[in-house]
Amino acid sequence: MRYKIMDGNEACITVSYNFTEVAGIYPITPSSTMAEFADKWASDDKKNYFGSPVKVVEMQSEAGAAGMIHGSLQAGCLTTTYTASQGLLLMIPNMYKIAGEMLPCVINVAARSLASHSLSILGDHQDIYATRATGFALLASSSPQQVMDLTGVAHLSTIKGRIPFVNFFDGFRTSHELQKVRIIDTDKLKELIDMDSLNDFRKRSLNPDNVVTRGTCENDDIYFQNLEARNKYYEELPDVVNSYMEEVNKITGEDYKPFNYYGSKYAKRVIVAMGSVCETIKEVVDEANKDFEDVGLIEVHLYRPFSIKYLMNVLPDTVEKIAVLDRTKEAGSFGEPLYLDVASAINSVGKDIKVIGGRYGLSSKNTTPSDIYSVFEYLKDDNCKHDFTIGIVDDVTNKSLPKIPFKIKNNNVEFLIYGYGSDGMVSASKDVMKITGNNTGAYVQGYFQYDSKKSGGVTKSHLRFSKDPIRSTYYVDSPSLVMCTKEAYLKKLSMLDNLRKNGVFILNTDKDSSKVLDLFTPHDYNLLVSKEIKLYIIDANKLAKEVGLDNKISCIMETILFKLGHIIDFDFAINKIKEDLEEKFKNKSGDIVDKNIEAMSKALDYLEPVEVNGSLKEENEELEESIFEIISSGKGDSLK
Amino acid sequence: MRYKIMDGNEACITVSYNFTEVAGIYPITPSSTMAEFADKWASDDKKNYFGSPVKVVEMQSEAGAAGMIHGSLQAGCLTTTYTASQGLLLMIPNMYKIAGEMLPCVINVAARSLASHSLSILGDHQDIYATRATGFALLASSSPQQVMDLTGVAHLSTIKGRIPFVNFFDGFRTSHELQKVRIIDTDKLKELIDMDSLNDFRKRSLNPDNVVTRGTCENDDIYFQNLEARNKYYEELPDVVNSYMEEVNKITGEDYKPFNYYGSKYAKRVIVAMGSVCETIKEVVDEANKDFEDVGLIEVHLYRPFSIKYLMNVLPDTVEKIAVLDRTKEAGSFGEPLYLDVASAINSVGKDIKVIGGRYGLSSKNTTPSDIYSVFEYLKDDNCKHDFTIGIVDDVTNKSLPKIPFKIKNNNVEFLIYGYGSDGMVSASKDVMKITGNNTGAYVQGYFQYDSKKSGGVTKSHLRFSKDPIRSTYYVDSPSLVMCTKEAYLKKLSMLDNLRKNGVFILNTDKDSSKVLDLFTPHDYNLLVSKEIKLYIIDANKLAKEVGLDNKISCIMETILFKLGHIIDFDFAINKIKEDLEEKFKNKSGDIVDKNIEAMSKALDYLEPVEVNGSLKEENEELEESIFEIISSGKGDSLK
Repeated sequence: MRYKIMDGNEACITVSYNFTEVAGIYPITPSSTMAEFADKWASDDKKNYFGSPVKVVEMQSEAGAAGMIHGSLQAGCLTTTYTASQGLLLMIPNMYKIAGEMLPCVINVAARSLASHSLSILGDHQDIYATRATGFALLASSSPQQVMDLTGVAHLSTIKGRIPFVNFFDGFRTSHELQKVRIIDTDKLKELIDMDSLNDFRKRSLNPDNVVTRGTCENDDIYFQNLEARNKYYEELPDVVNSYMEEVNKITGEDYKPFNYYGSKYAKRVIVAMGSVCETIKEVVDEANKDFEDVGLIEVHLYRPFSIKYLMNVLPDTVEKIAVLDRTKEAGSFGEPLYLDVASAINSVGKDIKVIGGRYGLSSKNTTPSDIYSVFEYLKDDNCKHDFTIGIVDDVTNKSLPKIPFKIKNNNVEFLIYGYGSDGMVSASKDVMKITGNNTGAYVQGYFQYDSKKSGGVTKSHLRFSKDPIRSTYYVDSPSLVMCTKEAYLKKLSMLDNLRKNGVFILNTDKDSSKVLDLFTPHDYNLLVSKEIKLYIIDANKLAKEVGLDNKISCIMETILFKLGHIIDFDFAINKIKEDLEEKFKNKSGDIVDKNIEAMSKALDYLEPVEVNGSLKEENEELEESIFEIISSGKGDSLK
Repeated sequence: MRYKIMDGNEACITVSYNFTEVAGIYPITPSSTMAEFADKWASDDKKNYFGSPVKVVEMQSEAGAAGMIHGSLQAGCLTTTYTASQGLLLMIPNMYKIAGEMLPCVINVAARSLASHSLSILGDHQDIYATRATGFALLASSSPQQVMDLTGVAHLSTIKGRIPFVNFFDGFRTSHELQKVRIIDTDKLKELIDMDSLNDFRKRSLNPDNVVTRGTCENDDIYFQNLEARNKYYEELPDVVNSYMEEVNKITGEDYKPFNYYGSKYAKRVIVAMGSVCETIKEVVDEANKDFEDVGLIEVHLYRPFSIKYLMNVLPDTVEKIAVLDRTKEAGSFGEPLYLDVASAINSVGKDIKVIGGRYGLSSKNTTPSDIYSVFEYLKDDNCKHDFTIGIVDDVTNKSLPKIPFKIKNNNVEFLIYGYGSDGMVSASKDVMKITGNNTGAYVQGYFQYDSKKSGGVTKSHLRFSKDPIRSTYYVDSPSLVMCTKEAYLKKLSMLDNLRKNGVFILNTDKDSSKVLDLFTPHDYNLLVSKEIKLYIIDANKLAKEVGLDNKISCIMETILFKLGHIIDFDFAINKIKEDLEEKFKNKSGDIVDKNIEAMSKALDYLEPVEVNGSLKEENEELEESIFEIISSGKGDSLK
């Protein structure tokens, strides 16, 4: 077993690259990394399964990329792309064609919101749902590990089953979430390619020596019959996918199915969902079932073709109520897509199960264990109603469920790092993950919140470490260490609210210990006192300047993080950072490495603990703030 | 009450033009006529409700038209477009924006198939279903009369309700079906405009004197809340639409609702459908209920927002089984969109009703009363299964229902005219409709089948006349008169199969009466004999040449049609044709009118009845034909 710290995008391209002969690309956030890796590996002459580097072609837009893919498939090349959001929308017309012509294609999607009332680069399922009528199969992964394991299933199944795939996972939450991922044995995957089907595909390609008519026009006499002629392939596809999942299970030791059930065998209340939220739901299911709540989750992998057989295979007989969670909003529809499928499926098999649907996580809205638990609790209510929301407070149409506090007990150690765009703290945080994850048995998780609206805005790095796999697909909510590289945030952001008792707070400031406490709001000062928080300050900018690094403080802060975080042997970590620095800058001239090493060696000297003991201060009343003030002080989530 | 013979496209633009300030267009079959009328009327300086001609802007594609519409709406202009199929797909990204920004817009759609395994210009609901996630409302009309009555509801509701509309009807079957349409009182429609809402829309427009920020980018903190903030408008929209329908009912005497019920109050078996098939279903419901079958139809007008309230208002309490008919195929889905909505809606209200779904009419596939009756019969079966098809024979996945012969008894008189592309017979048929419909109390219906693959192919004009409104939205199936302008068709097409006993068959041929019977296949000859068909021949091409009209035979054949059709006083009709000719050619030089009048006056002299009495001939066995032979002999419908 080989592990590597990587995000979902890297996990996807690690597998997808091998199956790809041609990639038609037009990179779009948050899928860009996949296309970039493909491009880089191709220029490094990395070979795919067929002994060639991928031919990467960048077009003028996603519409062009889709046309190019269609043409390349007609020419008999296994063709792939990577996209999201509006980019995927532009591919829809060609997707109908590709599916209609039964060409083996995989579109890897880091699912993202669509621009409607406003644009958002963050993640939900609006884009992939917009393609559900095209005839593409849709395969969902809930974590970077699943992306690693299931991307091959999409590629293998499209070759064998002749139906093209959208292989998707949540934008940012999965695409950009760093995790310790077990690398799949790609040699074994290669053996699973159905060479007969692949050869048939090659033979069907357009070829001047074997002339056929394609792209015909049909009238009302035969169009319908020809459309129905595809039924057989769709009916067989769930079995194809299932059999490849079984093969992958043999390789990985996992237990993937088109629908996976997780939870009590005797569950009366079950949630159906797909994507990263499933990981959080599993946490909640485990925790709730400790108290014999008898709840469960159906995790959707194969969303299209939607197979009632495989759904009913895993649904416990005891289930009385189902809540379907959809990460989208289809205004004007009576319910969101997954809900409509599940509710009709239940009607069709004649089961007496109440099915309700709700929305969550639009545009990467944080969805916590409390939100999920609220759903399970709501299902106890005999009058529970369809069309609810979680994660927000809806005081207009009152669709939101009241949030019931619910705590997951696990072994996670959590850090939260506040930086500002381009100060290097996100990279430093990723370094911490990689050094810790790659060199110990620990599992790590890193999720990075940027402000998409401007560079130079607040960045938050949510870091978790554990001896167990980490399934918490939501913000760090009780860090034992919080770091802040910009003292001005003290006035705007409430950074100490979730810090654990006896936790560590590290502030980069040019104030000395006698003055620094004056920077804190009365509210934060009181938290320092009441939670007995260990406060440290450092003037990292002064040190950086002294050694000639200007404002590049990330190396210094990383050193401090390893020192006060106690997640790994300090000296080992420092040596690793040095090695990485030497590797990173080996082709650069100058003494940049030496300067960083000097800064790191002096960092601890600049670190200063600050004694906090005083009495509580009177807190100011909250003033009425404008919506812009609320958003810019990081409290937008509290808006109703 | 004013009536006019027109098709659905003309009915739509007749109303839509008034509400439109700007039309962003890129015409596409079968919606083109609407854009062409708008363009023509604008250049004729025809005024809209606001005292100006419509500003018509043609863009480089439908994607450009959609962007232009979005911009025009932002500038505070009531903006409209007309499109279909791939054209509508290209508008999807902008549709999410327009709906998200709550701009009053109407996209009028003559619904058409999408290109998948092949292209088709004919009609079904694939395109409008592809937009159901965008947040647009979707309003359906089932006939040209409904298009006339409901297009105003879309325009009025979007102004008042702030949600944009797709106003749609079936491509070809409704868009190109000639009907006698009662013209709506547009002055009364104008009074219904909510001027306060319209003024609010104008005030919200982008304006250099009133600067606002639009098209923002949002993060995960507030995107979800803002999306949900639109709920209220969607919840209120069905009431807005319903109240405008009530106003239109006052004007027209009709009874439009978001969902209309038609049939027995005690129905146990009900079909839910939308579009032109509803007219056929009404015929079947009436006929079946004469035998106390107790069946009914729910005709969907407001498909989005999908209102359970209005659905349940009209669903009889006695219903035990529902079949939902969808004019689309979403490969990989467990059921088609309307089915999913209805089945989940039934689950959500906790009713014990079995719901099954089926497909029909893809790409204008003919859907007959027998097909519909088969569905009602199938619903009697306790084991009736979801996911069936009608109108085709599926011998691969066996999803098709057996067709149960079912005959509608009505007062329709039917003609079927076989011509060849560009011979003028479609125009002549339309003339016959207009002269008959505009000058008598008779209702008429004309549907014109072309071969979309090439000009010069077979054209079939399906004409109906009746003293009652005509609801038969399927091919003429028992004509009393069949005309054929090309004798070569005798070898290829079975034109006499459905001709009524004692019916009339008119053949244009240069053979004389002694030779002409040799042209008939034994099969057709036997039909002539057994059905005692009155056979007439005419050498129209010879006559046309003689008077100097070359091969323009349509005027001659039209004269014959009026003579032998007996639908209207012959001399009156001939005078009308002459008047129309003079009007049509008044700006042309030459003696074209005189030539036509001469040809008409001599037509009857060239007409010759042929005696058919002989014994039956031995019919040849059918030979195995290739798929191309079957399609080109007009028997593609019989392909399984």
